[in-house]
Amino acid sequence: MDKDLLDKILSSVTGSENKEQTTEKVETAALTQCNLTEFVGAGIGDTVGLVIANLEYHLHENLKLDPKYRSIGIVSSRTGGAPHVMSADEAVKATNTEVVSVEFCRDTKGGAGHGSTIIFAAEDVSDARRAVEIMLSSLDTNFGNVYGCDAGHIELHYTARASYALNKAFNAPIGKAFGITVGAPAAVGLLMADMAMKTANVDIVTYASPASGTCFSNEIIVTFSGDSGAVRQSVLAARDVGLSVLRGMGQNPVSVTTPTL
Amino acid sequence: MDKDLLDKILSSVTGSENKEQTTEKVETAALTQCNLTEFVGAGIGDTVGLVIANLEYHLHENLKLDPKYRSIGIVSSRTGGAPHVMSADEAVKATNTEVVSVEFCRDTKGGAGHGSTIIFAAEDVSDARRAVEIMLSSLDTNFGNVYGCDAGHIELHYTARASYALNKAFNAPIGKAFGITVGAPAAVGLLMADMAMKTANVDIVTYASPASGTCFSNEIIVTFSGDSGAVRQSVLAARDVGLSVLRGMGQNPVSVTTPTL
Amino acid sequence: MDKDLLDKILSSVTGSENKEQTTEKVETAALTQCNLTEFVGAGIGDTVGLVIANLEYHLHENLKLDPKYRSIGIVSSRTGGAPHVMSADEAVKATNTEVVSVEFCRDTKGGAGHGSTIIFAAEDVSDARRAVEIMLSSLDTNFGNVYGCDAGHIELHYTARASYALNKAFNAPIGKAFGITVGAPAAVGLLMADMAMKTANVDIVTYASPASGTCFSNEIIVTFSGDSGAVRQSVLAARDVGLSVLRGMGQNPVSVTTPTL
Repeated sequence: MDKDLLDKILSSVTGSENKEQTTEKVETAALTQCNLTEFVGAGIGDTVGLVIANLEYHLHENLKLDPKYRSIGIVSSRTGGAPHVMSADEAVKATNTEVVSVEFCRDTKGGAGHGSTIIFAAEDVSDARRAVEIMLSSLDTNFGNVYGCDAGHIELHYTARASYALNKAFNAPIGKAFGITVGAPAAVGLLMADMAMKTANVDIVTYASPASGTCFSNEIIVTFSGDSGAVRQSVLAARDVGLSVLRGMGQNPVSVTTPTL
Repeated sequence: MDKDLLDKILSSVTGSENKEQTTEKVETAALTQCNLTEFVGAGIGDTVGLVIANLEYHLHENLKLDPKYRSIGIVSSRTGGAPHVMSADEAVKATNTEVVSVEFCRDTKGGAGHGSTIIFAAEDVSDARRAVEIMLSSLDTNFGNVYGCDAGHIELHYTARASYALNKAFNAPIGKAFGITVGAPAAVGLLMADMAMKTANVDIVTYASPASGTCFSNEIIVTFSGDSGAVRQSVLAARDVGLSVLRGMGQNPVSVTTPTL
Repeated sequence: MDKDLLDKILSSVTGSENKEQTTEKVETAALTQCNLTEFVGAGIGDTVGLVIANLEYHLHENLKLDPKYRSIGIVSSRTGGAPHVMSADEAVKATNTEVVSVEFCRDTKGGAGHGSTIIFAAEDVSDARRAVEIMLSSLDTNFGNVYGCDAGHIELHYTARASYALNKAFNAPIGKAFGITVGAPAAVGLLMADMAMKTANVDIVTYASPASGTCFSNEIIVTFSGDSGAVRQSVLAARDVGLSVLRGMGQNPVSVTTPTL
């Protein structure tokens, strides 16, 4: 019986992979075949972006939204927490929306990290849609500094000016340079954090480990703020030490897209 | 060293798969080769059903069972939360047992959802065994409205009359029509919930998201009760919107067994 | 876009696997290519062991370490909780270190169990390094009584004399014989626990299930202490019943390395 299940899932997976291979160029066509007005788009890490123009009353209450907001944009991913918050930060800077919720989950399809769900609230659905669009379009860039391999992954994130998404998710001081280092398995993250903190004069903002501050993920995540140059230098030093350790484990960590740091 | 581990696991997996392929017809025979009286059976989603005629005293205390119950039936799965609760609900309606515990876990073998563990207590082991048997036998049906694909899954569950398992797990009002919608990645679940609530006059019972009410799973799960026709209509509307979004992500969601709604 | 991600990850995985196949004999050479002084070694279950000679001040504070400890050893794994605690127990017996933190995470690369992160604190970095070395070197032995298969796994652990790592992780009475039984899916663990408790005169120390005491893993984990012979007998009886159930599920559970019990 389990075999049936496995077969069904395999055929579904294989099916969709084949489709992707043979119809690469009509992919955009396929995506626009979703004729729901709520569907905005999909992206890397099994990310999906949706809008709801007029959220149903009880759900609105459940999310404790300010009554002035009728519309929401919502973006969920199977893989990626910090890259999504970074992307949401760019979206919230550029639109008339508020980040009302950032939730992480223990996912990554068997990887060591998080998936995420971020909700933007807006008075007008076009603002919510714009925020989701901007967020989706900047995901590829923000995945550039995620390096994955079979044994784990490291992530580096840097912004010269943190905004409301980073504040909501990591308590980042608004308007200041902000850095994030992530390492998995967790020990890698602690070594990266130690290196980041020793490299330049930065202030630790949050420290999260498997048992505290994560969703039981296998990561140590440290965030810090400070002078723009210092934060950047710390992030780069953490990257080098993280890549070294993963290579020491016999792995070959590669950027998920294209590194920007 | 890690390679050795991988090889061992692969050979174990491959071994068991081969066995399944070549000995499909003797599978029942193989299952009855487990000569433990405690073993009741296995099922879809790596489900196993067991009974303990006379639970050891300290474990009995630990589970806080009523002293009148000496026997328990226990069913665990790697994949499947709501389908198992639905099946347990049928079992508890038909037997002289009580559902004393429903626990979810963050599992699904790398999927976005839950596994589950449900314990029935009974004064007599034959009642516990019967409950486990009924539950196992109705799993295939309840997996019919689970649609999976590589990027996520959606689930719809409907009963005209909720009983004690649904009450224990989701606080369902006993004897009333009850519906469950699940979508993963989580954003899909919120859109399904919005559609369900707008479609007909139903009352929300529970709302669960990655950070609250789930085991950090990548799902939004909404349950609701109301008039039988209304609940059914809501569930169907949620299904359509959920399937549309997954298809919009370039996926091909398929029922795990055979849809019943 | 998701396809790109998949390809990248696949190529990374395949790449590293090929490398492993063709360069098996130079693996040790590859490992020593990590020229970080902080890198101690890697092991089964994607385990990595590191030392930090002089932990950065704010991280030191964050971990609430006694000021007398300047150095830490830290070991993280993707797969393996109890085997790592058992190994840490041997390390702490043999070195001048303190186990200051044991954290589990919901990992195992899509399996049902835990990964772990254990921190040793020491006044001198050579002590921390020695603890990590001893821990890494005893992992293979402690994985011998972990039996895995596609549907789940069971684990048995026995020590004649528990020390500070087992005390920190499971509240084990120092100096007494101590046993651990783990079964996944969770129902298997409960049956094993019932058998262990009934077999000999042992005292239950901890009981952990998906919703309480684990990281939402799909396991029931029971620990017990008592007379050395009784604990050993209980562990062995639990093993037999656990293997029987997994075989009843049509699986072929095999030891990850070489059984020692």
